[in-house]
This record gives sequence, C-alpha cells and structure tokens, in this order.
Amino acid sequence: MTTSTINHQVRLASRPVGLPTADNWELTEEPVPAPADGQLVVKVTDISLDPAMRGWMNAGKSYIPPVEIGAVMRAGAVGTVVASANPAFAVGDSVYGSFGVQEYAVTSGRGVEKIDTSVVPAATYLAALGMPGMTAYFGLLDVGRLKDGDTVLVSGAAGAVGSIVGQIAKIKGCRVIGIAGGAEKCAWLTDELGFDVAIDYKGQDVKAALRDAAPDGVDVYFDNVGGEILDIALTRLARGARIVICGAVSQYNVTEPVKGPSNYLALLVARASMTGMVVFDYADRYPEAIAQMAGWLAEGRLISREDIVEGTVADFPDVLLRLFSGANTGKLVLALR
Amino acid sequence: MTTSTINHQVRLASRPVGLPTADNWELTEEPVPAPADGQLVVKVTDISLDPAMRGWMNAGKSYIPPVEIGAVMRAGAVGTVVASANPAFAVGDSVYGSFGVQEYAVTSGRGVEKIDTSVVPAATYLAALGMPGMTAYFGLLDVGRLKDGDTVLVSGAAGAVGSIVGQIAKIKGCRVIGIAGGAEKCAWLTDELGFDVAIDYKGQDVKAALRDAAPDGVDVYFDNVGGEILDIALTRLARGARIVICGAVSQYNVTEPVKGPSNYLALLVARASMTGMVVFDYADRYPEAIAQMAGWLAEGRLISREDIVEGTVADFPDVLLRLFSGANTGKLVLALR
Repeated sequence: MTTSTINHQVRLASRPVGLPTADNWELTEEPVPAPADGQLVVKVTDISLDPAMRGWMNAGKSYIPPVEIGAVMRAGAVGTVVASANPAFAVGDSVYGSFGVQEYAVTSGRGVEKIDTSVVPAATYLAALGMPGMTAYFGLLDVGRLKDGDTVLVSGAAGAVGSIVGQIAKIKGCRVIGIAGGAEKCAWLTDELGFDVAIDYKGQDVKAALRDAAPDGVDVYFDNVGGEILDIALTRLARGARIVICGAVSQYNVTEPVKGPSNYLALLVARASMTGMVVFDYADRYPEAIAQMAGWLAEGRLISREDIVEGTVADFPDVLLRLFSGANTGKLVLALR
Repeated sequence: MTTSTINHQVRLASRPVGLPTADNWELTEEPVPAPADGQLVVKVTDISLDPAMRGWMNAGKSYIPPVEIGAVMRAGAVGTVVASANPAFAVGDSVYGSFGVQEYAVTSGRGVEKIDTSVVPAATYLAALGMPGMTAYFGLLDVGRLKDGDTVLVSGAAGAVGSIVGQIAKIKGCRVIGIAGGAEKCAWLTDELGFDVAIDYKGQDVKAALRDAAPDGVDVYFDNVGGEILDIALTRLARGARIVICGAVSQYNVTEPVKGPSNYLALLVARASMTGMVVFDYADRYPEAIAQMAGWLAEGRLISREDIVEGTVADFPDVLLRLFSGANTGKLVLALR
C-alpha cells in the first residue's frame, strides 16, 4: 500500500422500494489514508453477502441502525492487515470485521477478530465459523431448544444458515427436513449434507410433501423465509413445537405489506412458540460455538460451503441479487480479485 | 325431579359460516332418565358462554374435538345434584362440569368438581375460579413469565379472561394497560379494577394511545383478540417481550382467511416470543390457582364480575352473540330461571 492507493467503495445512494436496483448504489473512490494512532488498515479479500443486508437498507427502527444514505454499505468481511498503528494487530494478520463493501477498511480494531486461515479458508469465517454458523448454532440449540429425537424443519435449507442448521441437527441425532428451491439444491442436502428429506418448493407441493415427511409433526421449525412456507409449517406443528424466526427472505423485497402468518392460531392448538432471534445477542458465546463448529469441520461432520463469486466491489449490486433469486447454494461471498 | 321431568337442550344443527345464526341450532327436549349405577343427574343453574365455543362449532382438528352435528352444545356450567347413584356425590351438592347447554345433565361424575358456594356465588366458578381465571393465571404467570416491573398489555380487557389478567398483573405490582371497546368498559377497568391505562379501541387511535401509555414498550402482551390489535401490539414490544396467544375473538367469525400478524418480524427485532396456550394443560395445578385466587377474592384484591343474563336454554343462541358484538362486561353467564 502506498499513499496513492485508491479505495473503491460501494455506498448506499437511495433506499430501495422492492428489489434493489443500480440507482440505489453509488460507486466511489478515495485514497487510503495512513492509519492514525491506534488504527489499522485492512485490505478486504472476501465480502459476505447476506439477506439481512436488504433490511439494513431500509429506514426505520430495527435490531441495528439502518445504513445511512451516502455511507459505505455495511458488510462483514475478511481481509489482511496492510498497515497498523495498533499494537494488537500486525501487518499480515488475517482478520474478520464489519469492513463494508470496499477494498480497504480503516478501523480502530474494535470488533475486529484475528482469524486462523491455516486450518480453513478465510471465507469459512464468513460461513460456518462466521455469522451464519453462529446464527444456526444458537438459533437451533438455544432459541429452538433442540431435544433428542426432535424432527427439525428448516427453510432456506441450501442457504448459508439453513445448511448449517440442518447439519447441526443431524449431528445431534435428529430427523431433518429441508426446504429449498430446485432439484440440484435438494440433492445436495440429502446426498452431501445428510438431510433425511429435502422438499423442492419450486417443484413439489410443499404441504403434501411435508405431511409425508413429518407424519407426527415438526418439533422445531427454523424459518429463514416467512411467507407461504411459514404458513404451511404452522399446519404441521407437533405439540410444544418451537419456531425460530431467523429471517423472512421471501418478504424482504415485497412492496405490499408483509404477509403475516394466517395460520398463527396453530400456535395455540399446538401450544407452540414462535421466537425471534438476533445473533449479536450471543457474541460472548461465539468462542464456544466456533470451537465446537471447528471441531466438527475438522472431523468432516460439518460441511461449510461457500458460493464464491470473484470480482470487484462494483459487482456487489448484481451479486447481492442472487440471494433473492435463490441463485446461490451455501454462503454467498464476493471475493475481490 | 320426577321421571316425567323434561330436559330442554340446545344442539348443534349445522356448522356456521361467519356468525352463528338460528339455523345452526336445534332446540330439543327429552325426559330426564333416572341415573344408572355410578351416574348422577345435575340440574344446571348457570351456563358459561365463551368465545372459544365458536371454534368448537367448526369441523376439523383443534385442541379439542369439534361438537358433533346433532350433539348437545358443549358448555361449562354449574348446577345442583338432583339425583345420584354415585357415592361421591349427594343430592344437593353444588357442582361444576362440562354439562352442556341443557337443563339437566346425566354424567358419570368424571370431570365433575364439587364447589363451595358458601363463600362465592356459583357463577364465580365460571369466572375467576373457573376456566377464565385459570386461563388468566397460568397464561400470565407461566406462559407470559411475568416479572417484577413488567409493563403488561391485555386486549379483550373487560372480558372474562382479560379482566382477571390485568388484576393479577396489578397484584404482582406491574403496570397494566387494557384495551376494551367503549368508554364505559374503559372506566370500569381503571376505576374499579385498578388498571393504569385503558384504551378504547372504538373511540381512540390505539397505536398512538399505546405509544403514550407504554413509551418503553410492552413486556407481556396477553392477546385475546388477534387481528389489527395484535399487529399494533407487535409494534410496541420491549426487548424480550412475551406474547401469550390465548384467543382471537376478532377472527372467529370471519369468512375470509384469518388475518395473520403482518408485523410478526417485530418478534425478531425485539427478540420476542409468541406462544399459544390451552388452559387444560394446567389441570393438575388448578387447585393451586384456585386457592390463590380465592384468597385474593376474599381479601377484596380481585373482583370477579359475572354478566348474568337470566333466561332459558332457548336464549342461548342470542346470548352467545353478545360475546362477538362486545356487549358483555366480565364473564357472560346464562342463568336458567
């Protein structure tokens, strides 16, 4: 890095209505400054793309403040320290942080974690060992209160979170049913990840398939999608079922009001609960989960699949849309090359 | 009672679409038999009318089997034993049971409880000391996990369950906001029952009133109504809030699909839960709750209000509709005179 190194960035230009379009983004560039005292500069190598990003683009109160208009788009990312005036970090360190959609991040180091890329690739820290893995782990085990013998249903099952949810449930000895879009994803779930059943919502009658797959009902439903599939899941709850509300990717880009679950009174019939979660609440327990998940990865019991798109930050707006068209399998990552 | 005593009954003639109409009922009469060995005959004095009855009239799986076409309408009731061939019951005993909408019930005694009418009137065993009271007690304390200092919101607050929910929350030292229809009901909640705030959904902007009443959000929302009010409550959840789904009286007679809560993703933002309950699950703990509630009644800390309509079983179809028009305050009872 020299003082003339240019940082290319993607900033939020306007708030989308429905699916984000090119108008919502602005590509900017600025020189990378030398780090001030206590700061470090990270060269970003891999950017995480998450369905939650769509929510961050909206104004209004949520579990995290919105990205301001004109700000660099928020994103988790991994990279390498290229300059440091912070004694806790040395040039060459591999790090994870909320570096944003840009080539270089200047940071105080707060919230930045060193990562060990000798065992797993850096991108895995955006997947099984990152937010999706943490979300799956705490969502299933804590919020979902997984028990021996449970039948577990997960939607968005071929996505970053869902694929880990199903695998953890299998490791814990449960019966696992995944819902995903397309025969290829479904084959991956059953053949590679060991799911008991995969239901293709694009090609199958989900309600009928779920009735066949879970004749005694579902004990834990991990919901990543909302909409129609949540309503179907509600019709198949076992007594005392737990629904984990992790997200609702089917609803993030709708322009009409969100479709609430018409069948929510099934919660009463089944004495079931529906609970929302935000992974950040578990930050102090991430080390426990990372240690556990790294062990499973090393033993080959857990597969972390990253769907890596190589490109530049300018590709971010298009790559993001893959999350909403269902084009990705596993964790979608933009690798800067 | 003589062998020629006639039992007038209300039977379900057909399943309603929307609000029940006269067509859905059949009035029948038959002689009251002498009790067979082990049986007793109860002369019914007070019949409980509950919003849940509307659900029992529908076909299909629920938390309890539907009332069959041609069967006497299911109802909790109190009465007096008038003949007994069961050593556990004597003529003159006051009893509670699921006696149905009829003047006389012949029963094996299973599920029949003797009640003490020397302290409170028999109808109170259909209210604070009956299912509504049990629902309020376990719904608020167990399902809602009430904590010191909680802000509690209850809808249907002037109804049989809601009025008890709010009073228990006050006894436990909480701030209590009730939603009810009409100025008179609201005045009763604040002036007689000690609610901190009552919101009149017929005359006020509920959303604005709730924002004023609960600036820091609601910790427990006890939902008896569903629909629009549930959606508004979802916008005002405190972190970690618990929603108790007890019923959805606004939705029981709709002919379009039930309105699911559009704002359910607020559960995620607030890390909140929504849990369904059925009071029967707590049957083995009713004695604990009854003892507690009877104590509060005796101390004057809890008011059980019964809205008693005097009439005959033939009045049942019309009186039932008061629950859905919001005409009753407190527990609606049909007293047979």
